[in-house]
Amino acid sequence: MKIIIINGPNLNLLGKREPGIYGNKSFEEYFAELKNIYKSIQLEYFQSNSEGSIIDKLHETGYSYQGIVMNAGGYTHSSIAIADAVAAIETPLVEVHISNVYNREAYRHHSYISKYAKGVIVGFGLHGYRLAIESFLM
Amino acid sequence: MKIIIINGPNLNLLGKREPGIYGNKSFEEYFAELKNIYKSIQLEYFQSNSEGSIIDKLHETGYSYQGIVMNAGGYTHSSIAIADAVAAIETPLVEVHISNVYNREAYRHHSYISKYAKGVIVGFGLHGYRLAIESFLM
Amino acid sequence: MKIIIINGPNLNLLGKREPGIYGNKSFEEYFAELKNIYKSIQLEYFQSNSEGSIIDKLHETGYSYQGIVMNAGGYTHSSIAIADAVAAIETPLVEVHISNVYNREAYRHHSYISKYAKGVIVGFGLHGYRLAIESFLM
Amino acid sequence: MKIIIINGPNLNLLGKREPGIYGNKSFEEYFAELKNIYKSIQLEYFQSNSEGSIIDKLHETGYSYQGIVMNAGGYTHSSIAIADAVAAIETPLVEVHISNVYNREAYRHHSYISKYAKGVIVGFGLHGYRLAIESFLM
Amino acid sequence: MKIIIINGPNLNLLGKREPGIYGNKSFEEYFAELKNIYKSIQLEYFQSNSEGSIIDKLHETGYSYQGIVMNAGGYTHSSIAIADAVAAIETPLVEVHISNVYNREAYRHHSYISKYAKGVIVGFGLHGYRLAIESFLM
Amino acid sequence: MKIIIINGPNLNLLGKREPGIYGNKSFEEYFAELKNIYKSIQLEYFQSNSEGSIIDKLHETGYSYQGIVMNAGGYTHSSIAIADAVAAIETPLVEVHISNVYNREAYRHHSYISKYAKGVIVGFGLHGYRLAIESFLM
Amino acid sequence: MKIIIINGPNLNLLGKREPGIYGNKSFEEYFAELKNIYKSIQLEYFQSNSEGSIIDKLHETGYSYQGIVMNAGGYTHSSIAIADAVAAIETPLVEVHISNVYNREAYRHHSYISKYAKGVIVGFGLHGYRLAIESFLM
Amino acid sequence: MKIIIINGPNLNLLGKREPGIYGNKSFEEYFAELKNIYKSIQLEYFQSNSEGSIIDKLHETGYSYQGIVMNAGGYTHSSIAIADAVAAIETPLVEVHISNVYNREAYRHHSYISKYAKGVIVGFGLHGYRLAIESFLM
Amino acid sequence: MKIIIINGPNLNLLGKREPGIYGNKSFEEYFAELKNIYKSIQLEYFQSNSEGSIIDKLHETGYSYQGIVMNAGGYTHSSIAIADAVAAIETPLVEVHISNVYNREAYRHHSYISKYAKGVIVGFGLHGYRLAIESFLM
Amino acid sequence: MKIIIINGPNLNLLGKREPGIYGNKSFEEYFAELKNIYKSIQLEYFQSNSEGSIIDKLHETGYSYQGIVMNAGGYTHSSIAIADAVAAIETPLVEVHISNVYNREAYRHHSYISKYAKGVIVGFGLHGYRLAIESFLM
Amino acid sequence: MKIIIINGPNLNLLGKREPGIYGNKSFEEYFAELKNIYKSIQLEYFQSNSEGSIIDKLHETGYSYQGIVMNAGGYTHSSIAIADAVAAIETPLVEVHISNVYNREAYRHHSYISKYAKGVIVGFGLHGYRLAIESFLM
Amino acid sequence: MKIIIINGPNLNLLGKREPGIYGNKSFEEYFAELKNIYKSIQLEYFQSNSEGSIIDKLHETGYSYQGIVMNAGGYTHSSIAIADAVAAIETPLVEVHISNVYNREAYRHHSYISKYAKGVIVGFGLHGYRLAIESFLM
Repeated sequence: MKIIIINGPNLNLLGKREPGIYGNKSFEEYFAELKNIYKSIQLEYFQSNSEGSIIDKLHETGYSYQGIVMNAGGYTHSSIAIADAVAAIETPLVEVHISNVYNREAYRHHSYISKYAKGVIVGFGLHGYRLAIESFLM
Repeated sequence: MKIIIINGPNLNLLGKREPGIYGNKSFEEYFAELKNIYKSIQLEYFQSNSEGSIIDKLHETGYSYQGIVMNAGGYTHSSIAIADAVAAIETPLVEVHISNVYNREAYRHHSYISKYAKGVIVGFGLHGYRLAIESFLM
Repeated sequence: MKIIIINGPNLNLLGKREPGIYGNKSFEEYFAELKNIYKSIQLEYFQSNSEGSIIDKLHETGYSYQGIVMNAGGYTHSSIAIADAVAAIETPLVEVHISNVYNREAYRHHSYISKYAKGVIVGFGLHGYRLAIESFLM
Repeated sequence: MKIIIINGPNLNLLGKREPGIYGNKSFEEYFAELKNIYKSIQLEYFQSNSEGSIIDKLHETGYSYQGIVMNAGGYTHSSIAIADAVAAIETPLVEVHISNVYNREAYRHHSYISKYAKGVIVGFGLHGYRLAIESFLM
Repeated sequence: MKIIIINGPNLNLLGKREPGIYGNKSFEEYFAELKNIYKSIQLEYFQSNSEGSIIDKLHETGYSYQGIVMNAGGYTHSSIAIADAVAAIETPLVEVHISNVYNREAYRHHSYISKYAKGVIVGFGLHGYRLAIESFLM
Repeated sequence: MKIIIINGPNLNLLGKREPGIYGNKSFEEYFAELKNIYKSIQLEYFQSNSEGSIIDKLHETGYSYQGIVMNAGGYTHSSIAIADAVAAIETPLVEVHISNVYNREAYRHHSYISKYAKGVIVGFGLHGYRLAIESFLM
Repeated sequence: MKIIIINGPNLNLLGKREPGIYGNKSFEEYFAELKNIYKSIQLEYFQSNSEGSIIDKLHETGYSYQGIVMNAGGYTHSSIAIADAVAAIETPLVEVHISNVYNREAYRHHSYISKYAKGVIVGFGLHGYRLAIESFLM
Repeated sequence: MKIIIINGPNLNLLGKREPGIYGNKSFEEYFAELKNIYKSIQLEYFQSNSEGSIIDKLHETGYSYQGIVMNAGGYTHSSIAIADAVAAIETPLVEVHISNVYNREAYRHHSYISKYAKGVIVGFGLHGYRLAIESFLM
Repeated sequence: MKIIIINGPNLNLLGKREPGIYGNKSFEEYFAELKNIYKSIQLEYFQSNSEGSIIDKLHETGYSYQGIVMNAGGYTHSSIAIADAVAAIETPLVEVHISNVYNREAYRHHSYISKYAKGVIVGFGLHGYRLAIESFLM
Repeated sequence: MKIIIINGPNLNLLGKREPGIYGNKSFEEYFAELKNIYKSIQLEYFQSNSEGSIIDKLHETGYSYQGIVMNAGGYTHSSIAIADAVAAIETPLVEVHISNVYNREAYRHHSYISKYAKGVIVGFGLHGYRLAIESFLM
Repeated sequence: MKIIIINGPNLNLLGKREPGIYGNKSFEEYFAELKNIYKSIQLEYFQSNSEGSIIDKLHETGYSYQGIVMNAGGYTHSSIAIADAVAAIETPLVEVHISNVYNREAYRHHSYISKYAKGVIVGFGLHGYRLAIESFLM
Repeated sequence: MKIIIINGPNLNLLGKREPGIYGNKSFEEYFAELKNIYKSIQLEYFQSNSEGSIIDKLHETGYSYQGIVMNAGGYTHSSIAIADAVAAIETPLVEVHISNVYNREAYRHHSYISKYAKGVIVGFGLHGYRLAIESFLM
């Protein structure tokens, strides 16, 4: 089973950026833990600050992987192009947000991606990624 | 560990109501499965079509249980009173929706409850309840 | 043929409440007249000020009766949960309003229920209930 | 008793246009049936695709007929001028819609005419016209 | 000097329609008075309930008359086509409303025509037409 | 003189719920103080988390008591049915809010009830109830 | 007959300010012409840039003059207090705007004053003041 | 192959009306050119300022012609009735606008017709009609 | 204890202006009554139609008085500058409205001041001022 | 004559993505056909999923090519930066959409690009590109 | 070179009012520093809480000074009259805000003045005034 | 002291693009002048049309430079991802716009970035960049 985690803009700063909201563990450290837990899954990780590169990666993996876990960061709320890519591909995608976006600015309450997602997981911190992986195992 | 699942209006029809959207297993059957999986957890289930009874149950369990999993059904989108109850209690609450509400009518995209929830899980069918329980174990 | 009339909040005050808008006949008196006219129909009447009880009654009658005539009063404009119940049941439901809601406050112009109803009858005073029953006979 | 049925734009296509929504009986056929049922009423029928002609007809009949049954079609949602004519005349007018407009595009949910109507009947197919006539007999 | 008064839908009912708002003098009577006052002006009068006929008349007079006084009635608030005709012609047009439209329904506060008019006169009853004629004499 | 205080959802948690906003005295304690101050008034207290029960209580007291003091909690902003009950009854009702609702979420700025109330008192903490009673003595 | 013209903010710059929109004659020059034309009327003129002074002047003249002609300039679109003064006084007031406000920024399309005015005259340049005076003579 | 071009209100003024926007060639001249280019097509032309007549023409041609090219002028943005006619007929219809409507007033950016059209062509001047005809040949 | 009552625009007309809404007692008469009732309080009164003068008075009294009772009249709904003054000063301020503003035009439902006020009292007629003073004594 | 076709995000999936909406021919195949038809034109093709690369390409070609045909995909509705590039360059650009965007989600009805385009062609499937090229030949 | 700094309502409280937002230096102290830095400039200072006085001052200085630096405080967001004065005068005006208004209430994000200003400087504390003066020296 | 100027999309066309709005000096020329004036500052310049590259550059410089001056061009109004980057980094950032954005399309009036910026400078042409640098020296 091949699953890829795709993180969008500014998530490379995790552990460094606004720790009050996002915690202080880097995603690389967390990803190592995940790989350790889910040894039977072929788990990959991709991060980019570029909308186009995220779309390219969705096209690349979206017809052959069994699952995509995506946190599109700020693009969640503005990118119709990424949402169109999610609609176009065949691999089911779970949308994850680390913080409780419903407790923040109003413009973070709307996601273009959600309606094309298999499911949405919001507010569980880094555990959200693990819940997303679990959802592919159920 | 005591966890209660609270289901709101019309969820008693599960398995009977719009099976294309909600599947055809009754919640009682599903709950039996859950109890079987999570034997170490003291798992309870409550359903009501009445906004007031849901608030009463939140008050009753919200200071002594370790977790609440709630699918407030139609009240999700209209009840400030239930949201106020969630804000008032101390037990963390995970909001679950069976269907992908973002793929349905616009008025189902907004939840008064989400901003007071520990986390939100949308669109995974009945598996959403299990993911919510998992989140209390992480 | 079994038909139930379900009246929502404050309609128990009929004949007493704002007679300029709602007339001064109580619904019980009117219901007696209706039973007299439609002797061949098994006609029932239910009124509640509670959203949850209305949903319960819809579930109870919505799989075995041939028709439901409902005036959900103020819940018409705010209750997604009642509307969901109407969508979930199988018995066709006719929505009735005594006054011309389009001639009153803007928030009375929208009904969550209408789109799931067999039909909507507005503004004919108590005659609206009779027209609704007639519609089940056509 | 003189009652006129006024049909607005595109209703001349009835039976031909979108039969999934409007059925496949022409209005002329249906009108013959109505005349047969209500032999004691002097029943007339008028159809026009022109907003101005509908206003002219309302002026012509609106001071001498006992009832008007009008389905203004697409003009329902856009014509302040027709609504003003309804307000200006003395004959009571019942607004009818064949399809359940609340189940279609949002712009079909608002009617300029309703607030000046004696009553509104929506969603009963061609039976709506008959219910409207019944309302004049109550 | 040739000036035409163009009245839109329902203004043929003047003196008959809602006298509380519009007074009880017919426009024909008022027009006779106007002709008497402004003997040196070649004064004409046109009324139609049809949007298309009003546009036709604007085209016909809009390149040779010295002034147009128009009360487009309900079309004021809905007709982009009449407004386009006003923009297209060369004769200056004064927009008149008998009642104070700002004291009525919100949808009567906006006019598509105003921005193309030489001026707008609202709320002076029938005197508004005379003020409009006066404006062409200044 | 008979006056009833009606408290809506979650106000049973007073003294326990969000003390930063609502203070830490229970309403029962406060009510005892009030009874002590206003000995000549027959003062009653009712609390319910159920919309329907609040409407029932308004019907029950709304034709025989001299005053109602109501804090409808979260139902203030969502319940047309309670507002309709206030409009329907004869006893004057004073609307009270403990916290300054204008300093909280936007959805708390609108009350369906206010327009039918004798008066509105906002932001004085528990003193608001006493001011409401005083208003019946002036 | 006593009539006062009240001009609001920036109208003292007339003839100097944006001549493309407002022309290049000062209001004092124009007022002299008006006095000359309407010798039988006791004509006064008041200008202020202060909202409070305009309200004071409306109070002062609003119970004894026969007419007020007011161009409240920018306060037209923002001052509820001036509109309240117009509603409170007894002298009829005609609202005048020199330019066609409907052809400018959207925020100039709404006037708080209009609904309390005897009439509104827009877009005739300085002639608008004269038409307003004429309206008091009809 | 029979194709009809239907032009709506004010397009009879082409060549005369606002030449800066619409050019100075009359449509009749342009139509002669078109007939010359597309000799094998049976090309017709219809223009009316009346909404009702346009609907009548759509009904008349909409079941037997192979294509309709329509520029509904101002009715594009206001006529639900014409849009309903386009939905009702069987002949595919191409919507054309001479000017770039997206570069003009906001109310010209929305067309009720577009969603029922085979395609939409905007901003190419009179060439738009030719492109529309070409589209029927591809 | 020093308390000042500050009244905004048009409240000097009390007893004269729209007595149906505001009653027919002048504020001076009412103020004399108040002084008589609250002899131990050093009670002052200030009224101005000028936004700037009200701000000046707030600055002057807002650091040394124990309470301010303000009815800012029409400025309530438009003046950010007065609201800023209320936020800036240290003396607690109670906002009072004589009429039930929630029963009037929509633009009277919003107050810029409320969120900075100690409390808000609406709809009790002149008694509202007395309730405000009482609130400073609790 | 040099013309470039620029396709935006996800259009590289053509023939593969949602064939019900977009057809099942790849753009490369279609482009080969186009080159065959328009042999005299120097036709180029560029596709990118990256907003920045599209802007770069517009800058590169926008001062030397004779025409640009662009389908910006999802960026059409969100990219002010691409629209600014279109405004900045000198080469005329025709905007093309394969599907009828007016028949899809509301957020696809608005294009930031249209107002700077030479023209817009919507809904003709792949033929839209050919119509765009034809428009440069007229 | 003559430059005037105009400060609007509540800015006289600087150093006293909400020091967390506005700092604790009085504007008089700051102005003395500015005069010291810019000795070659004839620097003046004016503050008023009155909208009318600010307009008067703009008229007085707006044709003879070389620059105006204005912080209109709360009037920034509500005063069309001040904005009109800025548009009417000839002296270029720089708009300054001490705090970052974009980080505060939504109603502080819009300024009527900005579109008529030479430039806008927001969020630099008192340094904003100095930057504004610098802009006149570039 | 290290300061970087970051320019967003289309600003590489400066001097070439819409000179009426943006002037005709290239940014490279202007940057050379700036370096000459601020010799003691280590001044750098970066431009990209790609949202992702701008975010990358903010991450790269945002923890070690003393100041960032950014004109994000069209991304200002659409990029939540860039705004998030500004919020995440530690270096203070001044937002600059060359033209007066408040005098252009409504969608240019809102910036996602402003609330996270140290300050905002709008409308001073290229001088805005120099004012921004000056602000770091105060």
